[in-house]
Amino acid sequence: MSNATLAQRRDRAMGAGAPLFYSEPLHIVRGEGVYLYDERGKRYVDMYNNVPCVGHANPHVVDAMVRQQATLNVHSRYLHEGIVAFAERLVALHHPGIESVIFTCSGTEANEVALRIARMVTGKRGIICTNATYHGNSEAVGALTRLTAERNQAGDVAAIPFPETFRPIKPGATEAELCEAYLDRLQSAIRALEADGTGFAGLIVCSIFANEGLPDVPQGFMPRAAEIVRKAGGILIADEVQAGYCRAGTWWGYEISGFTPDIAVTGKPMGNGLPLAAAAARKELIDAFRSRTRYFNTFASSPLQAAVGMAVIDVIEREGLRESVGAVGTWLKGELAKRKPRSAAIGDVRGHGLFIGVEMVKPGPAKEPDEKRTVEVVNKLKDKGFLTSNAGAYRNVVKIRPPLVFTRTHAEEFLKAFDETIATLDG
Amino acid sequence: MSNATLAQRRDRAMGAGAPLFYSEPLHIVRGEGVYLYDERGKRYVDMYNNVPCVGHANPHVVDAMVRQQATLNVHSRYLHEGIVAFAERLVALHHPGIESVIFTCSGTEANEVALRIARMVTGKRGIICTNATYHGNSEAVGALTRLTAERNQAGDVAAIPFPETFRPIKPGATEAELCEAYLDRLQSAIRALEADGTGFAGLIVCSIFANEGLPDVPQGFMPRAAEIVRKAGGILIADEVQAGYCRAGTWWGYEISGFTPDIAVTGKPMGNGLPLAAAAARKELIDAFRSRTRYFNTFASSPLQAAVGMAVIDVIEREGLRESVGAVGTWLKGELAKRKPRSAAIGDVRGHGLFIGVEMVKPGPAKEPDEKRTVEVVNKLKDKGFLTSNAGAYRNVVKIRPPLVFTRTHAEEFLKAFDETIATLDG
Repeated sequence: MSNATLAQRRDRAMGAGAPLFYSEPLHIVRGEGVYLYDERGKRYVDMYNNVPCVGHANPHVVDAMVRQQATLNVHSRYLHEGIVAFAERLVALHHPGIESVIFTCSGTEANEVALRIARMVTGKRGIICTNATYHGNSEAVGALTRLTAERNQAGDVAAIPFPETFRPIKPGATEAELCEAYLDRLQSAIRALEADGTGFAGLIVCSIFANEGLPDVPQGFMPRAAEIVRKAGGILIADEVQAGYCRAGTWWGYEISGFTPDIAVTGKPMGNGLPLAAAAARKELIDAFRSRTRYFNTFASSPLQAAVGMAVIDVIEREGLRESVGAVGTWLKGELAKRKPRSAAIGDVRGHGLFIGVEMVKPGPAKEPDEKRTVEVVNKLKDKGFLTSNAGAYRNVVKIRPPLVFTRTHAEEFLKAFDETIATLDG
Repeated sequence: MSNATLAQRRDRAMGAGAPLFYSEPLHIVRGEGVYLYDERGKRYVDMYNNVPCVGHANPHVVDAMVRQQATLNVHSRYLHEGIVAFAERLVALHHPGIESVIFTCSGTEANEVALRIARMVTGKRGIICTNATYHGNSEAVGALTRLTAERNQAGDVAAIPFPETFRPIKPGATEAELCEAYLDRLQSAIRALEADGTGFAGLIVCSIFANEGLPDVPQGFMPRAAEIVRKAGGILIADEVQAGYCRAGTWWGYEISGFTPDIAVTGKPMGNGLPLAAAAARKELIDAFRSRTRYFNTFASSPLQAAVGMAVIDVIEREGLRESVGAVGTWLKGELAKRKPRSAAIGDVRGHGLFIGVEMVKPGPAKEPDEKRTVEVVNKLKDKGFLTSNAGAYRNVVKIRPPLVFTRTHAEEFLKAFDETIATLDG
């Protein structure tokens, strides 16, 4: 069957418009480590997928999954040591203010829990987020998606500009002045929520502003923002769904941004593909939520989630992936940054660990975002066997986010393809 | 380690108040077929769990899971034949008006999709549900949980009394009059939503009113309700998370209640423990939702969900579970009904297929719900090796909902334990 026929069947059975990557979509049939293979056997280096963090088809994870599914996989209203041990291990990886955890099946569900906790314990409705973010697809969490107005229609979500030095809200300012300018916007948003009676419940950010395009943030922004949030009685939620699990070369993105959240939400890489996510916080917050909601999640906190979640952390620790992510990522980012002076199309190179963004712009001092060219680069890289995507506030950032097992050798191969691609653009 | 110590660790790591069954919680370490085993090796007949529908640790499901996880498990923005084939197969099991499907990780997420579709395509906010229901744990879906007022605080959810003949809203009426009385409440709720500008978006019901306690519904209620909803321009959502997948002796609960929903939501049993759920509808509705939201769900529509979902349907069909559920369930319900005249504590025996409720009441004509006695029965049955729970609008219904592979022999063993338990109560 041709891919066109498969796409037609897909449109019929799953609805037209179910998202697909690339101008000519890929038909992927197999994965192993950092590699994906299409139906013709063509091999691709996966430089996009953070979910299979310890590698596609990782045998240790497969073993843990099959052993547990063949032993017991049931809901959480019986005692089970596996899930308790996993909760303890996850919490111990966080800063000491994170003590207890609620497991869910998706980042959306975990962010739902985080927002509900913030609103419940403050008794207020107003959540502040950044203006080019994404935290999930439910009605309450989806209200935070790319909110360009200052307030959503229901009035309970306010957006502030995401902090960045590349297209600063106060051009010509020093970094310290710029930091103040962004903090002022946060303070204004809090004041506005309090003034109209909505009240300020909390701030939610991706710790490294991934969907915004991994901006370089004015020095000191997040520690100061955290102070402001706490002084105003709000809850600080770090969405670590993309930033966490060693992605940025540290266990958590908040270590890089220099703050300690009240609630840390994790997801994507936790189960190497098994649906698994979590909202973790100090015990007092979790207890308050549990006592008021009797929250129960059928598929979450299961022995299967525990076994697979443990196996993923085992591999990360045993293979020293945090350290290798730091080393490989720093090297790759440095090499990409060297390409910037060579091409007018490369506006900026940013990121942390194995999460790197190459921002594509139209030549000239205006730094005009060039989404079209970004899509072209992503498609050409795909043809050369390297899978990336485009992201960021203007969809003009080549998003590089491979499985954590991506090595220096893969990075070298990628740079060759990247150089060839950029050369054809410039020609 | 003692169970008390484990429970303490659990309270610390997962928050105090994470729900547990039974006055002395069970510590379950292994499952096989309809059996669960505790840490001392004691065997229990599982008469509660609908998620492991084809049996705990079903080897066919384990095989499918491990084969797929060892081959490929990645998100849905690449073409993959497995998920398309699974979507086609699931849709074909429904009535012809169900054409396309959106997969999610949980019933909550699927009900989120259903509510958003209803609100989106009607351009109205008002959802009507029944007054003792549960459809999930997100903010939007949680707003439907046991809503005792006529309207929730936000004004966008209205509750109507669930239809029943045991404690009818119009005592002494004929069944036909009673049916009209419940339909009147639906029509009033629609009118109220339209009158205040909220508008009527749709009605959501569990097709067999499971959380309400599996009431006997006045003949003709659901077909007439469906007419009323459609005439008013609303979307009819059947929550089949508990009712579907042969639980009631038919593939879908709506077959028993005699209506065809616009959107059918499925969940719990679909993946035998793997997080997997779906909202299915006619293509036009799914297309409209996709085009307006670009909905994407990281862990859903994966090759793993497809492989496991297929394996579950394979087992159901190959082992003729729909037929056996009907036969065993009808027999067990009949046997339980025979116990009613023998004990003043048994108020009613209801249900469909292998989903049976035994309603416990205080002796006398008032049919006063007896939650305390129900809890006592459930705990005593547990001590005898049979796992049930209490549910229903008054928490006074012994909920019998075993894996679909439960046989006549298990039912006979259970009846012996049930008789002994009831005898001690009466003594």
